[in-house]
Amino acid sequence: MKVNLSFEKSHSNDLSIMVDVLRASTTITMALNHFKEVIPVVEHMEALNIAREKEALIAGERRGATLEGFDAGNSPIEIQKLSGKTLVLTTSNGTRIMEGMNSKVLVGCFTNARAVAMAARNLAIEEIEVVMAGVEGRFAIEDFLGAGEIISNLQNLDLSEYAQAAVMAVQDKSLVKNAVLKSRSAKRLSEIGFKKDVEFCLRTNISTNVPQFHDKSIKKII
Amino acid sequence: MKVNLSFEKSHSNDLSIMVDVLRASTTITMALNHFKEVIPVVEHMEALNIAREKEALIAGERRGATLEGFDAGNSPIEIQKLSGKTLVLTTSNGTRIMEGMNSKVLVGCFTNARAVAMAARNLAIEEIEVVMAGVEGRFAIEDFLGAGEIISNLQNLDLSEYAQAAVMAVQDKSLVKNAVLKSRSAKRLSEIGFKKDVEFCLRTNISTNVPQFHDKSIKKII
Repeated sequence: MKVNLSFEKSHSNDLSIMVDVLRASTTITMALNHFKEVIPVVEHMEALNIAREKEALIAGERRGATLEGFDAGNSPIEIQKLSGKTLVLTTSNGTRIMEGMNSKVLVGCFTNARAVAMAARNLAIEEIEVVMAGVEGRFAIEDFLGAGEIISNLQNLDLSEYAQAAVMAVQDKSLVKNAVLKSRSAKRLSEIGFKKDVEFCLRTNISTNVPQFHDKSIKKII
Repeated sequence: MKVNLSFEKSHSNDLSIMVDVLRASTTITMALNHFKEVIPVVEHMEALNIAREKEALIAGERRGATLEGFDAGNSPIEIQKLSGKTLVLTTSNGTRIMEGMNSKVLVGCFTNARAVAMAARNLAIEEIEVVMAGVEGRFAIEDFLGAGEIISNLQNLDLSEYAQAAVMAVQDKSLVKNAVLKSRSAKRLSEIGFKKDVEFCLRTNISTNVPQFHDKSIKKII
C-alpha cells in the first residue's frame, strides 16, 4: 500500500484524506459529535439557501469572522455548543478540494489523526493519498505537520519521500506546537479572537470520528 | 531577510542556492578543491566539445554511469582524484535549473551547508531562495533535507513556512542519514556501485567551498 502526500491537487483514484487543520478539517471532525451530517459549501449565500431548505444550522466564516445569520463560525470550539441533524458549513478551500477528488474522501487533522489513518488503511485498495489544503494556494505548515501526524500512523506502508519528510518533521512535538502557533493562519486567527481554536486544533488523537465526504455530504464512518 | 524554499523553479531575483545533493551539488563543491572552474552542461556531446576546446577534463554520467571518453563520473569521491584548471561536468537537471535562474546563483549541499548559508546571507539583498532540484520532476528527500541543513544556519531570518518545515525535518541527524541512504536516488546509485558516494554526500560542513554559477561557469567565492 502506497502513501502519497500532495498539495492542493488530488491525483488518487483510490482514497484521499483532505487536511485543512486551521480549521475546516478540525471543525468537521468535531461537528460530527453532535450532527449526523455536515454539508460543506463554497459560498455563504448557498449555505443560507441549503440551511433554509433543510432546516439546518449553519456555520462559517469569511476571513475568519462569523457571518450574519449564521449560528457559529468555522470554529471547532463553537461548533460543539450546537447540535442537530444537519450542519451546513461554508469552507471554500476545503469544499473545492473535496469536490475535485476522484477517490473515496476522508477528512483528517490532528484531533483524529490515528483514527483517520486506520480507517484509510481499511478502505484503500492500493494507495492512501494525503492532500494538504494550504492557504490561498500557498503551502501551510499546519497542514504539512497534520499530514505528518496522520502518516506517522502508517509507517509500515510504502511511504513516498514527501510523506516520509512530513513524518520526520513531526518528531518533536514541542516544535510542532510552536510552529503551528506561529503560523500565518494561527496569527490571523489570533488577531480576530480565535487563539483558543488554534490550541484546540493541535490536540492530537482526541477524537475517533472519521468524516467521509460523499455525494455532497460528510458523515461519520461507523 | 526572507528565506524561501522552492522546488525546481526559481522565483527569486536576488539570491538562489541550487541543491542537488545526489550528486551534482556535492561533486561541484568538492571539485573546486582542485579546479579553478567547473562548467556545467546538459548534454554529453556538448561536454566533449567544450572540453576539447578548453583542454579541460570532463566528468559526468548518464543514469549514474560514467560515459566513454570521460575522466570521471559525476562523483564527489572520483572527482577529488583529478585536478586542473577547468572541469566540464554534465549534469542535466542541475544545469537547467541554474540556467533558469534570474538571481545570483550559489550551489549548496550537506558538505558546504554552513559555508553556503553564510555566503548567501552576505550576498543577498532581501531574499535567500533555496531551490531543491528533485529527480525527474519529483520531490527528492535528500534535497529537502540538504535544504533543511542549509536553512538551519539561517534561523534568525524570516523563514517561509516551507523553509521552517525543512528545518524541522533535520532535527534528528540519524533519521536524516537513514532517510537519505534509503532514498530512491541512493538506491539507484548503490545499485551501480556508488554507495560510498551517497555516504560521502551526507558528510556535513566538511567544506568551506561556496560555488557560484555565473556566465556559464562555476567558481569558488573567495
